Amino acid sequence: MDIKAYMVEVGTAARQAASEMASVSTGLKNSALLATADVLDKQREMLMSENAKDLTQARDNGLEPAMVDRLALTPERIDVMIEGLKQVAGLDDPIGIINDLKFMPSGIQVGKMRVPLGVIGIVYESRPNVTVEAASLCIKSGNATILRGGSEAIHSNKAIADCIAIGLKEAGLPETAVQVIETTDRAVVGEMITMPEYVDVIVPRGGKGLIERISRDAKVTVIKHLDGICHVYIDSDADIQKANNIALNSKTHRYGTCNTMETLLVDVAVAEKVLPDLASLYAEKGVELRGCSRVCSILSDAKTATEEDWSTEYLAPILSIKVVDNLDAAIAHINKYSSHHTDAIITENYTKGRQFLTQVDSSSVMINASTRFADGFEYGLGAEIGISTDKIHARGPVGLLGLTSEKYVVLGDGHTRQ
Amino acid sequence: MDIKAYMVEVGTAARQAASEMASVSTGLKNSALLATADVLDKQREMLMSENAKDLTQARDNGLEPAMVDRLALTPERIDVMIEGLKQVAGLDDPIGIINDLKFMPSGIQVGKMRVPLGVIGIVYESRPNVTVEAASLCIKSGNATILRGGSEAIHSNKAIADCIAIGLKEAGLPETAVQVIETTDRAVVGEMITMPEYVDVIVPRGGKGLIERISRDAKVTVIKHLDGICHVYIDSDADIQKANNIALNSKTHRYGTCNTMETLLVDVAVAEKVLPDLASLYAEKGVELRGCSRVCSILSDAKTATEEDWSTEYLAPILSIKVVDNLDAAIAHINKYSSHHTDAIITENYTKGRQFLTQVDSSSVMINASTRFADGFEYGLGAEIGISTDKIHARGPVGLLGLTSEKYVVLGDGHTRQ
Repeated sequence: MDIKAYMVEVGTAARQAASEMASVSTGLKNSALLATADVLDKQREMLMSENAKDLTQARDNGLEPAMVDRLALTPERIDVMIEGLKQVAGLDDPIGIINDLKFMPSGIQVGKMRVPLGVIGIVYESRPNVTVEAASLCIKSGNATILRGGSEAIHSNKAIADCIAIGLKEAGLPETAVQVIETTDRAVVGEMITMPEYVDVIVPRGGKGLIERISRDAKVTVIKHLDGICHVYIDSDADIQKANNIALNSKTHRYGTCNTMETLLVDVAVAEKVLPDLASLYAEKGVELRGCSRVCSILSDAKTATEEDWSTEYLAPILSIKVVDNLDAAIAHINKYSSHHTDAIITENYTKGRQFLTQVDSSSVMINASTRFADGFEYGLGAEIGISTDKIHARGPVGLLGLTSEKYVVLGDGHTRQ
Repeated sequence: MDIKAYMVEVGTAARQAASEMASVSTGLKNSALLATADVLDKQREMLMSENAKDLTQARDNGLEPAMVDRLALTPERIDVMIEGLKQVAGLDDPIGIINDLKFMPSGIQVGKMRVPLGVIGIVYESRPNVTVEAASLCIKSGNATILRGGSEAIHSNKAIADCIAIGLKEAGLPETAVQVIETTDRAVVGEMITMPEYVDVIVPRGGKGLIERISRDAKVTVIKHLDGICHVYIDSDADIQKANNIALNSKTHRYGTCNTMETLLVDVAVAEKVLPDLASLYAEKGVELRGCSRVCSILSDAKTATEEDWSTEYLAPILSIKVVDNLDAAIAHINKYSSHHTDAIITENYTKGRQFLTQVDSSSVMINASTRFADGFEYGLGAEIGISTDKIHARGPVGLLGLTSEKYVVLGDGHTRQ
C-alpha cells in the first residue's frame, strides 16, 4: 500500500467534507449524532464480535490484562458511547455565533463569527470509545476528522466507523466527514502530521512518548497535553480541615489521571501541625511519601525525595512532599517544576489567594479546591477532547470551542475607506 | 560571536522578564510607555543622527530610494512613534480580566483569566518605527519581547531600544522586557525560531519570502500573514452605485497594502451593465485590467488574464476580473484562489449576503464594504501587531488580545471531587 497516496486521498476527501460541514445546520448535525447512537444500539452484536477479534489478538500478543480490559467493548461501554452521542447532540452549537457586532466610527459594523477549524486529525491509543467521542465532537463543531486509533483496536474502530458513516449518511451529511484510517501501518502518523494542506490541527491522545514524538515532527499545530505534575500548596493561613480533605482527595481520588496531585507543598509555619495527620491519612490509603529533609525530620517514615521526584508524574500511590518557607517559595517551586497543568493553594488569606492566582503560570489555578476538578465536564464544557498544557489556541480542558476559530464579519452600506 | 550562546542569554533574560511582567500593574505598564514617549521626545537629535548612519550606509549599498525612504526617521515619524506610545497607554489592559466566573453543579466557581503569552519574538524588516510599535504592544500585554529588525536599520533600532530601556527602568520594570538583537548576523533568526524553551510565539513582519522561510523552519508557533489576495464580488442584486464605489475604493485607495482587492468577480447578469463604467473609473486611475474571456468580450481594452493571475497579489495598479455564473461560482472561486484574508460581496439580497458570510472561509468577510477596512484600527482593536491568515490562535487583524492566552481559575471552599 502506498501510504502517501492513501493519505492524500483521505486528506482530499476530508478537505471536501470540511467545506460542506462548515455550513451544515445544527439540526442536521444533531440528527447525524442521534442516528449514529441508534445504529450503535442496533449493531451491538456486530460491534462486540468485531471487538472480540481485537481482544483475541491482544491476548495472543501477550498484552497486559489491564490493557486488554481498556480495549474491551462491553454492553455497558456501548451504553456509555450511545449516551455520549446524545449528550453532544444536546450541547449548544458554537458554529455561526456572531459576537460583539459593534458600530465603528467609520460606520461599518464589525463582529466575530465562530467557525470550524477545518480538518482535525486525532491520533490515539487502545480505547475504541475514543473513536465515538472524538467523532461526535468534530461533527458537532462542523469539522471533518481523520481518526488514527491504535493498531490493537483496528477491528473495533472500523466497526464503529461503519456505524458513524451510516449515521452521517442518514442525516444527509458527507460520510467522509469522519474517516477512520484502515491500515495499521505506522507511517500513516508521519504523513498525517506533516500535511498542513489537508490537516489543520492534530490532537494526540496517549502516552507522553507518543505526544513528544508527534510534537517534535509535526508541521501542523498540535493541541497537546504532555503531563500532569500538579501541586497543592498548604499555606500558613490554610483551614486545616479543608487542607486535609483537598490534599487527600487530590492524591487518592484516582492515581492514574493527569489532574492528580504529584507534589504537596506545605508552609513551614504549619508543617509540624499538618504533616503527621496527613501522613496517617495517606498511610491508610497505602500512599508512599517521599519528602525533603524538613519533611523527613517531621515524618520519620517518609523516604527522602531526590531532585528527580519534583519533576516526576508518578500516576501511582506515591507523593512527594516539600516544606517551603512561604508563598513566594511555593510559587517559585511550582513555576519551575509544574507541568503547567493544575495547581492549587489552600488558604483563607485573601491577598495570598489573589497572588497565587495571578503568579502561578498553569492552565488551571485553584483556591481551596481539589486539583481533580480540572476536567471539561467539571468545568461545564459538556465534553472534552483533551487537556492542553500549551498557551497557544487552547489551554486547559478543551471542549467544542477548542475545535473552532473565529472570523471577522463586516457589515456596511456601501462604505468606502477615506 | 557565538550566536547560540548569545541567544540563550537573550532568551534566559526574556523568560525572567516575562515572569515579572506577567503581574505588573496596569499603572506601571502605562508609566513605562509614557516615560518612553518622553525619552524619544528628548532624544530626537540622537535618534536622527543614529538613523543618519543607517541612511548613509543604505545609500552606499545602493538601496532603492523607496527603501531608503522607509528607513528614514523624520521629525514627523518620531511624532507618530510618540503618539503611538500614548495611544497604547490609553488602551484597556486585557491582562487579569476574569470572564464567565460561574458556579458549577459541584459548587466550585470556574472562570477564565486573561494572561500574557510569555515571550514574543518579532522578526521584521527596514522600518524602525516597528520597533516602538511592537515593543509597546508587548509591554501593554505583559509580555517580554525579543526584536530582530533588519540589518539596514541596526543603528536606529539600537537607539530606539536605548530609549525604551530608559522608559522601562524609570517605571521600575525589567529593562530586558524589551531586547533588540544587537548583531546583524542572520543566524540569529534561525536560533530564535527554534528555541521554544525561550520563545512562545514568533510574529514575522515582512515579505512573503521571509514569512515562508520562518514558517517552514519554526519550532515555535508563528502568527503569520502570508499574502492578501482579496476579492470583491458584485452580485446580480448589487446596488450599482455601492458596487462602483467599493470596487474602486478596494483597488485604488492604496495599491501596496494586503487588504487591497486583487480580483473583481462580477455576476454574469450584471456584467454588461457594470463593467464598462467601472472600466472608465479604473482607466482614470491608470489601473491595468486583466479579464477572463467574458470580460474581454465586454471590455475590448482589457488584457487576457492567465491562470496565474487568479492567484497573484499584484500590490500594484493591476486588477484581474472574472465574470461568474452565480453566487456559488463566486464562492467557489474565492475559496480556491483567495489567500483567506478578506473578501467582500456587494448585494442587497439578504439570503445571498448570509450565504456569503457563512461559506467564504476568510479571516474577514464583508457585505457592502471596502476590503480596505480589514485593519486593526478600523476594527476598533486600537492597535495591530499584524494580520493573521491562519485559523489557529489568532485570525485576522491581531491586537493586544492576540498576544494573550487564558487560564482557568477555580474558586472553592474546601471542595473535593466525589
